[in-house]
Amino acid sequence: MAARAYLDHNASAPLSDAARVAVVAALGAANPSSVHSEGRAARRIVEDARRAVAALVNGRPEHVVFTSGATEAATTLLTPDWQMGRAALRMGRLYVCEADHPCLLSGGRVPAGQVTRIGVDGDGILDLAALEAALAAHDKADGLPLVAVHAANNETGVIQPVEEIGRIVKAAGGVLMLDAVQAAGRIPLDISAGSVDYLILSSHKIGGPKGAGAIVAAADLMMPKPLVVGGGQEKGHRAGTENLPAIAGFGAAARQALAALDAIEAVRARRDAVESLVSELVPDAVFFGASAPRLANTSFFAIPGMKAETAQIAFDLAGVALSAGSACSSGKVGPSHVLKAMGISDGQGALRVSIGPATTDEDIELFRTALAGIAARRAGTEKAA
Amino acid sequence: MAARAYLDHNASAPLSDAARVAVVAALGAANPSSVHSEGRAARRIVEDARRAVAALVNGRPEHVVFTSGATEAATTLLTPDWQMGRAALRMGRLYVCEADHPCLLSGGRVPAGQVTRIGVDGDGILDLAALEAALAAHDKADGLPLVAVHAANNETGVIQPVEEIGRIVKAAGGVLMLDAVQAAGRIPLDISAGSVDYLILSSHKIGGPKGAGAIVAAADLMMPKPLVVGGGQEKGHRAGTENLPAIAGFGAAARQALAALDAIEAVRARRDAVESLVSELVPDAVFFGASAPRLANTSFFAIPGMKAETAQIAFDLAGVALSAGSACSSGKVGPSHVLKAMGISDGQGALRVSIGPATTDEDIELFRTALAGIAARRAGTEKAA
Repeated sequence: MAARAYLDHNASAPLSDAARVAVVAALGAANPSSVHSEGRAARRIVEDARRAVAALVNGRPEHVVFTSGATEAATTLLTPDWQMGRAALRMGRLYVCEADHPCLLSGGRVPAGQVTRIGVDGDGILDLAALEAALAAHDKADGLPLVAVHAANNETGVIQPVEEIGRIVKAAGGVLMLDAVQAAGRIPLDISAGSVDYLILSSHKIGGPKGAGAIVAAADLMMPKPLVVGGGQEKGHRAGTENLPAIAGFGAAARQALAALDAIEAVRARRDAVESLVSELVPDAVFFGASAPRLANTSFFAIPGMKAETAQIAFDLAGVALSAGSACSSGKVGPSHVLKAMGISDGQGALRVSIGPATTDEDIELFRTALAGIAARRAGTEKAA
Repeated sequence: MAARAYLDHNASAPLSDAARVAVVAALGAANPSSVHSEGRAARRIVEDARRAVAALVNGRPEHVVFTSGATEAATTLLTPDWQMGRAALRMGRLYVCEADHPCLLSGGRVPAGQVTRIGVDGDGILDLAALEAALAAHDKADGLPLVAVHAANNETGVIQPVEEIGRIVKAAGGVLMLDAVQAAGRIPLDISAGSVDYLILSSHKIGGPKGAGAIVAAADLMMPKPLVVGGGQEKGHRAGTENLPAIAGFGAAARQALAALDAIEAVRARRDAVESLVSELVPDAVFFGASAPRLANTSFFAIPGMKAETAQIAFDLAGVALSAGSACSSGKVGPSHVLKAMGISDGQGALRVSIGPATTDEDIELFRTALAGIAARRAGTEKAA
């Protein structure tokens, strides 16, 4: 098979070697709820991973709840029904960001009528004044305001001003849930800093296996009504036998993601190389979110006159895997809700290149060759027209 | 390390070699929702597993919804809120069996006040007359009756008369959900036979990896309101990136479990050998559910005068992993709700031996040695007293 470049890390990052070793080592493990030796050995694997995931966001292991992924974690947190010990507590309204991932935008378990969407500016940054105004108008008689926003956008890589958002939410007496799925391992995260009350993570976006995610809470005094119920696993916050191999791999990936922060400039250099190539070969290319703070690994751009889906297929045939928008649901290719939220008319869609620590110069070279071919054909088509 | 016998398959079956190979092969797979070559290859893995899981229960692949496990599958099905296409449909009340697994007994998303528990007889068989009476009293103005019952008990192995239950539920115009977690691969299952509307399966109970389960529907006209929401995966019935390695392993395990039905008599012979040894070395031992139809792999018994937890620890030290009751939640050791439902006062608890196709004569020999030691100490204690 010819060499291929996988430049779609934001859809699913390649499994790291350390994560693979951890998964394989845990494949034979018993049920961590069993009290025999085999069960206790399995329990140790879960708790070791819990420490690693907590460390990635400067949290406490006892405040980590493992889930089957970030979507489940979001659905768990996005509910009107919370509990404080045995007392019930209510969130009166959910405030999400127009550019959030669909699993936040869906509102989770919050009825559609109790969800307010806050817009973003042309760079994709949350409209802080609109958030402040919406929270000022919040009627606390119905319950607390719950705010859910992404730390970094999965399509553009744009980074939200989390500290300022946290300040606004705290001033309004609200609760802030941060979708840190794309930010983890790419920018520092600190659940103990006081801005964020809960954050969610996904294993397979940071080099771990699919099938594991987590809620990390700043404190566990107040927790959402459990989503998956039955047994008493995860201190009653998430029932069901723990997905041990995935959790073990998640832990290993979390350790690596934390370490990878030190080498993020090498990722940024390769992403910048991608953008230089695009600018060189497609001088009229448009980069989205590029004037805002962005993740070092992501580039989101349009090639004028060429549909993103067409370009994506051409890249694929040329050996380069990248995406036209995000890959958040089965086979769905539609206009980007993120660009729409940014006020950009998205007639042709946009291409996303997302890379990681495992991306090599050879990958970038493959991208250059593929793009050169696409650009040449585009030039030919334009001349013919 | 000294040889150990793992006789706790009902808590988590050992990963089969075929499942391990499938998991490892799928570890590097991309996001199956991505449209590039890597994504399409991942999609094929999911759809191949879907066919295998459907075949295990004589269902159709398009009626299989993958979940993170059976607990999630149960919580998804156990809800008052259903949909028929775009139309909403309501289940007015949930009827569960007293001896069900906690993930059914919890009622899932059905409010506690709308759950009725139906008892079992001394053998652990559902009280059919009580079910019939309860359904006759059901007020359809509130919605349809939803009945959830296990096909085979995780503690005793007792098999429910599913066909008769189905007849009663159909006659009352109700919907039947079957917890087939422990039955799969041990007795034939047929979702197309007309008795059962939905069944749930767990990968790690049939030799697959942890982290995957499924809902299999007889038809998908009517489906529960999704539990995990966001992206459009699994035809909108379950959002979140598919746990590809676990699903691949689940598929491989399902193929083996179907084939294992042909060799179930070898499993039965070893289980019977276990019970002969217990009867020989502990003549006053009591076997629970033994006069009812039972799974071939399970034995649930009490050693009079000895706490099950004490015996379990003694077995563990002697190299035999078995359980005192079930391992359904973290570290919890309590009286068996199954025995209580059977009207058996469970002062000392009971021991569960659960085996599978991978169990060997050496495992049984280790069990014999361990039990002989425990029986000898018990005799000594009795003499001293």
